[in-house]
Amino acid sequence: MRYKLYYWPSIQGRGEFIRLALEEAGADYEDVARESGPGKGVQALLALMEGAARPPFAPPFLRAGEVLLGQSANILLFLGHRLGLAPQDEPGRLWAHQLQLTIADFVAEAHNVHHPVSAELYYEEQRDEAQRAAERFLAHRLPRFMGYFERVLQAAGGTYALGWQLSYVDLSLFQLVTGLRYAFPNTMARLESAWPALIALHDRIAMRPNIAAYLRSPRRIPFNQEGIFRHYPELDR
Amino acid sequence: MRYKLYYWPSIQGRGEFIRLALEEAGADYEDVARESGPGKGVQALLALMEGAARPPFAPPFLRAGEVLLGQSANILLFLGHRLGLAPQDEPGRLWAHQLQLTIADFVAEAHNVHHPVSAELYYEEQRDEAQRAAERFLAHRLPRFMGYFERVLQAAGGTYALGWQLSYVDLSLFQLVTGLRYAFPNTMARLESAWPALIALHDRIAMRPNIAAYLRSPRRIPFNQEGIFRHYPELDR
Repeated sequence: MRYKLYYWPSIQGRGEFIRLALEEAGADYEDVARESGPGKGVQALLALMEGAARPPFAPPFLRAGEVLLGQSANILLFLGHRLGLAPQDEPGRLWAHQLQLTIADFVAEAHNVHHPVSAELYYEEQRDEAQRAAERFLAHRLPRFMGYFERVLQAAGGTYALGWQLSYVDLSLFQLVTGLRYAFPNTMARLESAWPALIALHDRIAMRPNIAAYLRSPRRIPFNQEGIFRHYPELDR
Repeated sequence: MRYKLYYWPSIQGRGEFIRLALEEAGADYEDVARESGPGKGVQALLALMEGAARPPFAPPFLRAGEVLLGQSANILLFLGHRLGLAPQDEPGRLWAHQLQLTIADFVAEAHNVHHPVSAELYYEEQRDEAQRAAERFLAHRLPRFMGYFERVLQAAGGTYALGWQLSYVDLSLFQLVTGLRYAFPNTMARLESAWPALIALHDRIAMRPNIAAYLRSPRRIPFNQEGIFRHYPELDR
């Protein structure tokens, strides 16, 4: 099965959680909007959003044969057991998905830090509000979410979030740590020692052969000031 | 199967999307935190969040026999085909779930309108920011989301969101219209004519016997200023 991923070509964003799963599994996939030619590029992405029988509200979305799927966590729910990155049984699949949805909630809150008023205004148009939002986020929400994932990881034995074996949830937790370190290096340096299992998981994931190769490749888009995790020094006190 | 729903006892909130599905299906369920006695009440909810082997990050969560599930959309994914409110086949189930996740995104944005800086501050501590957020939300995001759901509904034939038959997605769209009318009556009066299929769906759902009986019952908690949809007249210009 050749998978076709549709996501904005210049950011990691929400698409990165899917890219990491496809890369770890060595799946045959195409990052459609990053290629050029007929049926490719951002035009192909936009055309599918307009013209699909079951249109997604926003990228990322995935084409797998006849199936077109939107919503990152939903895509991972579909891919998980197919790629060997989630259990086959229903309770196991739903637990993995529940954790992924909680990661998605956290990602949305991390994005709201630099866009508290509206995603449709520039950061520069909501800097004062972002300052207040960042203070609350870093003092309360970030520790609460990370503490939760640390607790889940430790309860599962400390190696993988599901206990089981490596899953897409572990890859997403890796991405969270990486993104938060980029966006809030001072805060993370201060807080990380509270989450030893999460940080150890991050380090192990980074050394997995397929992930390490991906991170070194041009397929991994560098963090920048357009994605979810952005580094504004004034927000990271 | 007797289902046990755990959610805050004084608000509709995210729990309401699940209550509506259980009520429409005539399911045997208990709204645990609204009852009193051993193993009930808010204490039981908090104890399960602390003590569960697979702890949910936040309410609502559902106990179904041995399974404990968190995240509203995940709970509906589990309940959907069991209650006859979603198709059995995987593509149908994932499409319903994708729409529900998009509803969840919209609900989170509707909540951010009165809490743009932080959910952990009072509205009164972020009124200025909320004023700006409301203007953008009502001018851009609300029409975009509602227009999307209108388009999906019309593409499916205009009667039910999945085409198929009544699903939990339709019940959630009913709740969206109801909540938005409570929170933003002026804006909704101005915009509703752009979404004829959605409004007609809302009206049909309200007349279904089980839903109509539920809405008249004390089990339906009235809208108030603690939930997701809140009426602050200054935000509804």
